[in-house]
Order: sequence, then C-alpha cells, then structure tokens
Amino acid sequence: MTKTEIQASLRDAVTAVKADNPMAASITNTVTIELVANAQLAVGGSAAMVYLPDEGEGMAAAGDAMYINMGTLLPVYEETLPRTVKALRDAGKPWVLDPVGIGLGALRLKLLQSFKDYKPAVIRGNASEIIALANLWELLEEPQTAGVRGVDATDSVDDAQEAAVALAQWTGGAVAVSGPIDLVTDGQQTARIRGGSKFLPLITGGGCSLGGVTAIYLTRSTPFIAALAGTIVYDLAGARAEKGAAGPASFQTRFIDELYRANAAEIAAYSFQLEDE
Amino acid sequence: MTKTEIQASLRDAVTAVKADNPMAASITNTVTIELVANAQLAVGGSAAMVYLPDEGEGMAAAGDAMYINMGTLLPVYEETLPRTVKALRDAGKPWVLDPVGIGLGALRLKLLQSFKDYKPAVIRGNASEIIALANLWELLEEPQTAGVRGVDATDSVDDAQEAAVALAQWTGGAVAVSGPIDLVTDGQQTARIRGGSKFLPLITGGGCSLGGVTAIYLTRSTPFIAALAGTIVYDLAGARAEKGAAGPASFQTRFIDELYRANAAEIAAYSFQLEDE
Amino acid sequence: MTKTEIQASLRDAVTAVKADNPMAASITNTVTIELVANAQLAVGGSAAMVYLPDEGEGMAAAGDAMYINMGTLLPVYEETLPRTVKALRDAGKPWVLDPVGIGLGALRLKLLQSFKDYKPAVIRGNASEIIALANLWELLEEPQTAGVRGVDATDSVDDAQEAAVALAQWTGGAVAVSGPIDLVTDGQQTARIRGGSKFLPLITGGGCSLGGVTAIYLTRSTPFIAALAGTIVYDLAGARAEKGAAGPASFQTRFIDELYRANAAEIAAYSFQLEDE
Repeated sequence: MTKTEIQASLRDAVTAVKADNPMAASITNTVTIELVANAQLAVGGSAAMVYLPDEGEGMAAAGDAMYINMGTLLPVYEETLPRTVKALRDAGKPWVLDPVGIGLGALRLKLLQSFKDYKPAVIRGNASEIIALANLWELLEEPQTAGVRGVDATDSVDDAQEAAVALAQWTGGAVAVSGPIDLVTDGQQTARIRGGSKFLPLITGGGCSLGGVTAIYLTRSTPFIAALAGTIVYDLAGARAEKGAAGPASFQTRFIDELYRANAAEIAAYSFQLEDE
Repeated sequence: MTKTEIQASLRDAVTAVKADNPMAASITNTVTIELVANAQLAVGGSAAMVYLPDEGEGMAAAGDAMYINMGTLLPVYEETLPRTVKALRDAGKPWVLDPVGIGLGALRLKLLQSFKDYKPAVIRGNASEIIALANLWELLEEPQTAGVRGVDATDSVDDAQEAAVALAQWTGGAVAVSGPIDLVTDGQQTARIRGGSKFLPLITGGGCSLGGVTAIYLTRSTPFIAALAGTIVYDLAGARAEKGAAGPASFQTRFIDELYRANAAEIAAYSFQLEDE
Repeated sequence: MTKTEIQASLRDAVTAVKADNPMAASITNTVTIELVANAQLAVGGSAAMVYLPDEGEGMAAAGDAMYINMGTLLPVYEETLPRTVKALRDAGKPWVLDPVGIGLGALRLKLLQSFKDYKPAVIRGNASEIIALANLWELLEEPQTAGVRGVDATDSVDDAQEAAVALAQWTGGAVAVSGPIDLVTDGQQTARIRGGSKFLPLITGGGCSLGGVTAIYLTRSTPFIAALAGTIVYDLAGARAEKGAAGPASFQTRFIDELYRANAAEIAAYSFQLEDE
C-alpha cells in the first residue's frame, strides 16, 4: 500500500469504529482489565470480559474480533483459551494476541505454543516479548536471546524487527512492537511511529490497553491498519496527555481523555515512516 | 407512599449511611470491582469483596446487605453463589442482583434461574437485562425480545417497564432500570429520574458501581428507597461531574468526588416523577 | 540504629530503588491490584502479578522480594501460596505479608497459620489485623480481642503495639501498622509517623498498595527500613495530595503523582518519633 492509501484506510477504520460502536470481547489479566475496557470505550468501541470456556466461545460468536492477553493466567484458562481460539478460527474471526509474561510458567508456555497454528491477526508486545514468541514458534533462522524480565522488556524495538517480520509473515497478519519508537509490520511493509510519553511505562496497562484498542479497530479494518491505528492513537494521545501532567496518575486520566478526543482526521494525518521489508 | 414521605425516607437513608459507615460485601466482576468499592466508600459505606463459598456465607452473616453481580463468572461461583444466596435468605438479609451478561453461558443461565426463588430485594440492570430476566423467570404474559449485546442494552427504559414491574411484584422488592431516563419501581409505584451524563456509558462500571451503592443504602432502608437513592445520587453526581470534564476519565474522577460530596438534603430534594402502576 | 543512621538508610533505599527499577512480584487481591502496581511503578519499582503455583515459584526466583496479600482468595491459592512462600524461604528472599480479611473463611485461616514458620520479613496491616495475627500465631501472653470488620479496623494503633512488637520479634523482621498515627517496629525500636490524609481510608487499596511499595523497598534495604520508607512516603504523599483535592478520586490521582514526585532527600528528612522497646 502507498502511504496515501494507508492514511485513507486509517481514516476509514477510525470513522467506522466511532460510528458503529463495535464490540471486541477480551480474555485478559486482572491487573489492567478496567483500563483495557475504558480505553476500548474511549475510542468508540464496546467491551466485554469473560473467563469461562463457553463464554469465550460465545464471545467469539458474538463479536467481530477478540483480544487475548496472557497475563495473570487462571487455571480455567487451560480450557478457555484453546476453545476460544478454536471458535475464533472456525468462525473466521480475527483476534489480537498479547504474549505478556512469556517465559513464565508451564501453562503459558503450552498455550502460546499451541497458538502458533491459530495465527492471531495481530500480535502486540514489547521487544522482548516479540523476540521470545518468534523463538518459541521457531520462526528465526537463529534463535535470538530475549530479555524478558517479569512483564518488562530489556531489548530495543530495532532488535525485534526481524522477529516481528517473521511472525507477521507466518500469521499473514500484523505485528506491533511497543517502545520508544514503535514498529508495526505486516511482513511486507514496516511503519515506525514516534510519540507517546515518558509516563506511559510508568502506568500499568499501557500495552494491554493498546492491545484491546487494536482489537476494536480490527473489527473494522485489516490487521496492519488496526495495529497502526492503535499505535498511532496511543502515540498521539500520549504526547498530548503528557503536557500539563503532574505525574503518572494525572497523565493516565488525561491520556484516556485524549484517546476519546482524537478524531479520524488527526489519526490519519499522524506522522510515520514506511519501509519495505 | 406520598412524594413527601419518599423524600423524608431518602434523607433518612443517606444520613444513616453517612453516620454508620455500613458494610455491604460484594461478589462482583473483576473489571469494575475497584470502582464498585470506591463508589461504596464515597457515599459513606464500607466494601469487602470475596470469591470463595464459605467467605460468601461469612459476608452474608457479617453485613446488613450484599451485592451480587454476574459479570466475569469464575468456576468457583457455581458453589459460591448458591451458598451465599441461601445464607442471605436464611438470615433474612436483603441483596442486590445485577444480571450482567444475561444470555451468555450455561453457568450464568443456571444461576440466574435458581435466583428466582431467592428473591433479591433489588434488581438493577439496563433495559435489555431487565427484560431478559423477566423472560427467564417467566413473569411476562408474553415473552418479550431482549436486545442484550455483550454487556450493553439495545432496548429503551420504557420498553422495560412492564418487565420491571413484573419482577418487583414477584420479589416484593424493587427494580431499577438504568438509561437516559432511569426508572425505579416497587411494583406499585414507579419513579422516573433524569440526570446523569453522556460520559457515564463511556466508563466501564457505571451500572455495576450503582448496584454496589444501592446495596449500601439497602443496609439502612427499604428496597424501593435504596434503589431510588442510588439512582438519584448517580444522576445528581453525573450531571455535576460532566461540567468541566474533558473526557471520560476526568469525568470519572469528578464523578466519584461528587458522589462523596452529595449530601442527604440534596439527594432528597432531587426531582423525580412518580406514578402508580 | 540512631535516628541519623536510619535517615541515611532511608535515603539509600529510596535512591537505589529509583536507580535500579527493581521488581517485586505480587500475589494480591483483584480489588486493588491495579493500584498496587501503579504505586509500585510510581516509586520507581517494577510490578508483576501472578496466580498459578509455578508462576509464584517463578516470581520468587526472578525478583528480590515479593508481596503477598490475602484479599479475594481464589481456590488455586491453596496450592499457590504454600509453594510460593516455600520457594521464597528456600531462596532466602524476603517478602511482605498483608493479612487482609483475617478471620474470614477456612482457607485464609489455614494459610495464615502456616505462614508462621515462613517468617515474612515485613507484616503490614491495620491495628485489628495485626492483633488478630499475633493472636493466631499465639505470640501474646494473653489473647487480645481484635475488632476486624470485613477489611476495616476498629482498634487503635496503640492497641496493636504489643502485637506488632511480638510479631517482629518472632519473625526477626519488621511490622507496620497503619492508622491515624502509623507505627513501624522491628521489635527493638519503634517509630511513629504522622501524616497521610482523611481521604486515604476513603479509597480502596491504600493499605494494599503500601504493602506493594514496601516490597519494592525491601528489594534494596532491611525490613525495618523498607517498612519505614513505605510508611513515610505514604504519609508524605498523602498530606501533599490532600491539598486541593475535591474528593477521594481526585485525591487518589494526586496521591500517585506525589508518590512519583517524592525524592530520597524528602523521605529521609520526614519527621518521625523513635523509642526503644
């Protein structure tokens, strides 16, 4: 796509979400679950969160996309997540995967391995998580060391470009890597976006809620456009919210307000760099 | 009751809550659980949340009322909720039911069906949830179509009046329906209340936290007065909070502040329309 | 330690946390889990929350300290908590225990009893919880009546001094009691600290998030210094945040901002009274 085509698609996606109030249900961690919902509502979507297997299947049927975040796994997820991703695949519904906590625990490992064949439309993570997932799915010519520490990254976004491209080429979807400069790729084209705020890493759930917002956009656009729209609105709202914020909590309030205020024209006009892979 | 009697009772209920700091424990969803607690604290109550069966029973014994919200069911609820509502009934303690997500999943269906005989003192929901519950409990002469979508309503409050009245007549308690114009009925009298804010549907947990606040008032008043007091304080605080809010998050902060600031005289003097059924 | 030595240690602890961004993982309740994480991030730490047994063990290995809060127990905690505290002890890692809800339910009772031999480095609670835990562990010469009501205290901090000292002498660590005047003791020396805000008891999670922040400081200091640093930064930030707050929600935003803004010199210079036991 040309940059102009991408910008037109961004505008269409954001406009459609604000017009239609589409629902993207989530199976997500309990730490940031409220922020995920509030961010989804702020950009014009509707939220619903579930834990039980048949409710995951029900939400796969009810919505146009879903968000699956691997933080704070509960025992029931051993059944819920396989049944939900199967229902999504069977129904041809796209979903966003956030591999939070990759490397911690046997259940997360087993589930993330199994997701390889279910090809999430968008994978969103920090640099270390994206490298770790590409390693786990054996998509790199040479395994790369990933510096996951708890839920934080110790790798740079550039370090994760090869992994992001490999993941996107495998899924046929898109990958978004969050960092000081964000990266979004569909395996053919890669966009780099600047913005955000020094305060974003100081609130819990910046990344998780971006995953949820991306799922909202995914109800009305392609994986690449959804991932790019989400990343842009976060960079735009983050930069605006930082002005006048006295600390991370006043930043968070302003940030959600700015997510709500950002319109389709502003998001489509936001600067990004594009390169071919 | 005459309007004057209702207003005197509203004033007494709000005054008693602020004086006594009564506890109403909750079994509620993980999305909005913090907001429920903070709203309960803001109006003068005390909050405690539990998941396990014997803890539900313990809270039924310890408090003067409880709040049960059906969002984000966990597997243990299959045991916790029946034991808790039985303990509440055996102890003669009133409780508030919020049938969030009605229509989704087998466990929620089974639990909601079983609650018919446990007669919650207050049922709170949006129009679609109230219609769906009256259908489920077979209280309508003719089944009515309910437009539940995830956790959102697609029906109007007037559409739900027949269902609300039927539910209240069955339980002998009260029903509160949230919408652009709110409705509270005890099956004999129905009040309509205006207010709130365009931002309330844009934050997650507006309805859930109203349920929790209603349970606090229920510790010190009848179901009808508790439901009316909760609805009024939400309409009053919502309208005040919207002024000067830049978006949904600054609205939410201001809204909790206004819940805290609203006093008994203001709540008792708030406008509502009353009609006999 | 002399007061001057304590102040130097406070300064070192706060400085090290801001420099190193240390992680303290938590197993904590779902009501205040987001606030715990955001408070930990605000003071310079890193947060990660888990529920599953092998993830608790993994976090015991990955971090320098942990936070265990007994609110909203889930069934899986019956396995997770014993395995996690064993892993912490085997690895010689310190942890903070917050005995929220003590007295409610069989699982909480069993777990809290078993923790006696695992000697948490810091125990943090309100007066009633501290008395109840000292009773449960049979550390008092004469059992003392504890007024736990749900999650609230009905005892004064002075009432809890004997229990706090007894607990600290048993564990060899420190105990922090939250109240109008806070108390921190290592069983040999006891500090009393004033400050905070009338709004702190009106937001849910003031105590829980203090426990999480204490665990962050515990990664870089002794139990007594960690407990004192946490208590001081809460008293300092609370007093500052109250100025200009319109209610509990605007207070909470300002409070997290002030946690972020408080520097090592201010925390070290904060007033406290010291006495020998």
